[in-house]
Amino acid sequence: MRAVIPYKKTKAKSRLSSVLTREEREDFVETMLMDVVSTISSAGIENINILTTPSNGIPDELDVNVAISEHGLNEAINSYLEKISEPVLIIMADLPLVKPQHITEIINSKQDVVIVPGKGGGTNILYIKNPEQFTVKYHGSSFLTHCNTANKNLLTVKIYDSFLASTDIDEPQDMVEILLHGQGLARIYIEKKFEIDESRGRLKLKYQ
Amino acid sequence: MRAVIPYKKTKAKSRLSSVLTREEREDFVETMLMDVVSTISSAGIENINILTTPSNGIPDELDVNVAISEHGLNEAINSYLEKISEPVLIIMADLPLVKPQHITEIINSKQDVVIVPGKGGGTNILYIKNPEQFTVKYHGSSFLTHCNTANKNLLTVKIYDSFLASTDIDEPQDMVEILLHGQGLARIYIEKKFEIDESRGRLKLKYQ
Repeated sequence: MRAVIPYKKTKAKSRLSSVLTREEREDFVETMLMDVVSTISSAGIENINILTTPSNGIPDELDVNVAISEHGLNEAINSYLEKISEPVLIIMADLPLVKPQHITEIINSKQDVVIVPGKGGGTNILYIKNPEQFTVKYHGSSFLTHCNTANKNLLTVKIYDSFLASTDIDEPQDMVEILLHGQGLARIYIEKKFEIDESRGRLKLKYQ
Repeated sequence: MRAVIPYKKTKAKSRLSSVLTREEREDFVETMLMDVVSTISSAGIENINILTTPSNGIPDELDVNVAISEHGLNEAINSYLEKISEPVLIIMADLPLVKPQHITEIINSKQDVVIVPGKGGGTNILYIKNPEQFTVKYHGSSFLTHCNTANKNLLTVKIYDSFLASTDIDEPQDMVEILLHGQGLARIYIEKKFEIDESRGRLKLKYQ
């Protein structure tokens, strides 16, 4: 079994531009990537592949394989899936709240496919036992798309229900969850710049 | 064991006012309440109490006890907790995605206190085995407050990790999750008025 992490650093996370500069966002996505790699590794997955484009550097200290593709996200992943014949965990790089226990539960599921929805219809983690039977389609309502793809191919599906694993970090409001529930490098990064604003409704980010 | 649902209908959910009129919001919160009562009931809890103020009517068809209090949320609940000597599940009325299985797992936990965080630091569900040892403080960072209260009282705590149970419906973006993951009356209500907008980033609500 192996894990693959699609990764984009350059100009990443534009929806965080109201609270982080471009350079800060690039640092921050690298930090989250390191948390995700650490989590997967702690769950015992040794074969970790980062799927990226030539312009996105990967920190040298990470014990991972780097697969370079010039293609867009979907084409790159589907091309990757075609070449492998073992179970694969596709996990996004912006999930610093995921814990090793989540990964262990997901990869030990009985079902053919496990889907962890993201907020607003995305797919945060996708575990596929037989990659040759599956093609991905990220962006838009990918959660529903991936459920439908599995159903059409008569594959059993588990929707994995976890607040921590469903919290992908795309918007400033999501960063609050790191301050509340996070533990890794991403939390340390956020704590240096922000604190919690309790003024009204849900907690918000406040500059220190 | 018993469950208590704090409930406010009149002028409820002001943060949904960009997509629902006041009357629609009042209908919608009643719909969500009915889903929550149905879920708790399906989980086998027979003693269900709705804690509300005199101005908020409860649908006659609900098989619940109604406790009226003139006080604010925290005072009303703490006054309620003082009078009981059995385990209690305090569950918010805006959780239409919660399933009976969540409730069953929560009330069968070994820990003294189980907390289901809401988005942005709230407390969606709070299970307390010995209510006389606990006082609540909702609003603001109530998740952290309740964790601290339990720790100070040397009570064991479980943070229950569920995307569905952590999704409280306060903002239009949350209603998208009902269209994606919901099953009950709240979904039927939302489906009549809205559909999914896939234009960019996370899915959004779109008027039909």
